[in-house]
Amino acid sequence: MSKYPISPFAPESFPVLPPLAGFEMATAEAGVKYKGRTDLWVLRGRSGTQVAGVFTKNLCPGAPVDWSRKALANPTDGPRLVIVNSGTANVFGGQASRDAVNETAQGAAKCFGASEASILLASTGVIGEPLKASKVTAQFPKMKKALDADGWEAAARAIMTTDTHPKGATAVAKIDGAKITINGIAKGSGMIAPDMATMLAFVATDADIAQPVLQSLLLELTQTSFNAITVDSDTSTSDTLLLLASGAAAHATINDVGDPRLDEFKAALQEVLFDLAMQVIKDGEGITKFITVEVTGAVSDQSAKNIGMSIANSPLVKTAIAGEDANWGRIIMAIGKAGEPAERDKLTISMGPHLLAEKGQRLESYTELDGAAYMKNSEIKILVDIGLGDGIFTVYGCDLTHGYIDINADYRS
Amino acid sequence: MSKYPISPFAPESFPVLPPLAGFEMATAEAGVKYKGRTDLWVLRGRSGTQVAGVFTKNLCPGAPVDWSRKALANPTDGPRLVIVNSGTANVFGGQASRDAVNETAQGAAKCFGASEASILLASTGVIGEPLKASKVTAQFPKMKKALDADGWEAAARAIMTTDTHPKGATAVAKIDGAKITINGIAKGSGMIAPDMATMLAFVATDADIAQPVLQSLLLELTQTSFNAITVDSDTSTSDTLLLLASGAAAHATINDVGDPRLDEFKAALQEVLFDLAMQVIKDGEGITKFITVEVTGAVSDQSAKNIGMSIANSPLVKTAIAGEDANWGRIIMAIGKAGEPAERDKLTISMGPHLLAEKGQRLESYTELDGAAYMKNSEIKILVDIGLGDGIFTVYGCDLTHGYIDINADYRS
Repeated sequence: MSKYPISPFAPESFPVLPPLAGFEMATAEAGVKYKGRTDLWVLRGRSGTQVAGVFTKNLCPGAPVDWSRKALANPTDGPRLVIVNSGTANVFGGQASRDAVNETAQGAAKCFGASEASILLASTGVIGEPLKASKVTAQFPKMKKALDADGWEAAARAIMTTDTHPKGATAVAKIDGAKITINGIAKGSGMIAPDMATMLAFVATDADIAQPVLQSLLLELTQTSFNAITVDSDTSTSDTLLLLASGAAAHATINDVGDPRLDEFKAALQEVLFDLAMQVIKDGEGITKFITVEVTGAVSDQSAKNIGMSIANSPLVKTAIAGEDANWGRIIMAIGKAGEPAERDKLTISMGPHLLAEKGQRLESYTELDGAAYMKNSEIKILVDIGLGDGIFTVYGCDLTHGYIDINADYRS
Repeated sequence: MSKYPISPFAPESFPVLPPLAGFEMATAEAGVKYKGRTDLWVLRGRSGTQVAGVFTKNLCPGAPVDWSRKALANPTDGPRLVIVNSGTANVFGGQASRDAVNETAQGAAKCFGASEASILLASTGVIGEPLKASKVTAQFPKMKKALDADGWEAAARAIMTTDTHPKGATAVAKIDGAKITINGIAKGSGMIAPDMATMLAFVATDADIAQPVLQSLLLELTQTSFNAITVDSDTSTSDTLLLLASGAAAHATINDVGDPRLDEFKAALQEVLFDLAMQVIKDGEGITKFITVEVTGAVSDQSAKNIGMSIANSPLVKTAIAGEDANWGRIIMAIGKAGEPAERDKLTISMGPHLLAEKGQRLESYTELDGAAYMKNSEIKILVDIGLGDGIFTVYGCDLTHGYIDINADYRS
């Protein structure tokens, strides 16, 4: 719960996430750091629940990420537990962080009756402060009694840090005639330039899908959702995205990622992941403008992504947009510094419906007045055609404002 | 001349740059953009003046950079001219920018009696506005009459944009018993992450040194001066660093970069380049803290540089320092996201004299109070030992403040 103003892009209300067959959960006030709010969430998947996950590519990841990477590789026939706390990321606390992770998993295994090695852990908050695991484990007995199929909004609230609102999404699909539901929650909202996933996002479904299929879907769909957003170019040490499938729905197990019965499910999963990623970016620290950078004509999709990220991460582009200045010169600069093939005199640049520049030159027909009027919108679209190939990618970002400075110059105080 | 507060790191006064044998100069108010100040500088080197230069690696460079790259490759026995304007960078104006460059060079060649193809041009200011060359060429006749051996401070003022003070440096050395002087001026102060040079810097000497030797010295010494600084990670389309040698000093021409008679000159040149680079960073847009990031123990010097840049460019590290928060967790994050070999549990981190963390863990002896007291300094030193090899590099940067947002959210208005 942030003391800063709620994002202008916050949804009017949290969506209705229905209970999911095969899952129970509880939240608690463990007092890890925050007072008077929940900061702990336990999700329990029934026996046989399959889990897929992607994690940060930051080379100095947190102890919970190290732990969960191993847990993911530990299949179990028993129930699956996910334990998430906010307040501290439990990163770079050395042995103390590793001890906290062990102690949390041991306590959870004992209380909830699960295999310790298969428990998934995630922590978010300040880096450099080890988690006091006893604060967490002390809550488990009470939470076990409170386990309930409902509670997604409470869960989304418990995992918030500088987020200004809880983030959730839900979708339905049919697999082989059986109705499937997908629920997801996520939290942001700074240190967001996910290289594998965003800080923390959890998606669950009652579908019956084998783990390799889940993992393959998650990897593919992450590329154009969580891996396409950037708040500040800083890749967190805690990024974790988990997808759990309880298998409680009434259809035969899907074992092949190419199975056409998955088509509708895949579209629904993409919808949930993209929705959550957009909620994360739209609650980026200090955001006043939501920015879409659509790059076409690059030599490859990866090249288009690198150019898009260079634009969306440029402090000068971001401050210009904050100032409602259609400063396309800074966009050129950001294209040129990306290190990707680009020729100044082949570039085409538009801001929303306004074509600004073609073949390296501003159009006679474009006026600063058109640009200035467009920049007053809260959602800004930058379209760049590199003019060299077929590579395309769309990146989503936000502006750089006094709000970002306010939040990050005193986050720990 | 900036309307924003003068950098707290501004020197008390501009240093005394003496006239240099073989060079004359003049400034003028061409009215390119600014009113009531100079915005044009002409430097004339006597016949036989040798020129070395390094330019931006941005792949969408300005028309003046394209032009000067060619001019550098055009040796001449006649005089050398450097023409610099502020107010517009003359970048991405398509044919109009190219025409402006041609027209300026033609006018200068005619008025000052120089070979058109050997004239060096540099422009700095807004991107996307072609230069009105007639405004510049109209000043030439008056400037020709005003040519004077003195005038380095006036020149440093004429090339400023958002700089809050003019930047100059001077040093003396002996080559083979003859006294040599080196003068340099530079301008910053945003879009500074030079990949070859800073936005604009001009260094001149009366030494008699062959062009290939000058070029070799400039390339080498740029690496640890201009190429070691970053204000905002944004690499300008106009970066230009020129080194001119008139050869007027009383010593035989130096033709070999390994000549031991160059030792003292090389040290003096390094002093001038480093001094100018530090003045640029210390006038970085919105700066309140000057940051030195000293990386040791990386697998190579390049790896150390990449890690240092990742730290110095991280918005979260920069805002933490602005907020006087010794938030070393964010330093870890920035190390990990650099993509260079690093192991969390081998890292050692200090803030100035305070050892914060060793082997991936905060020291018992370190207290937040020590850190908080140190962070009140205006010059902050971050020391990171990666613990893997012998690679070292030092990067110089500044914090990210409300001042940066103020300047860049309304730079064009």
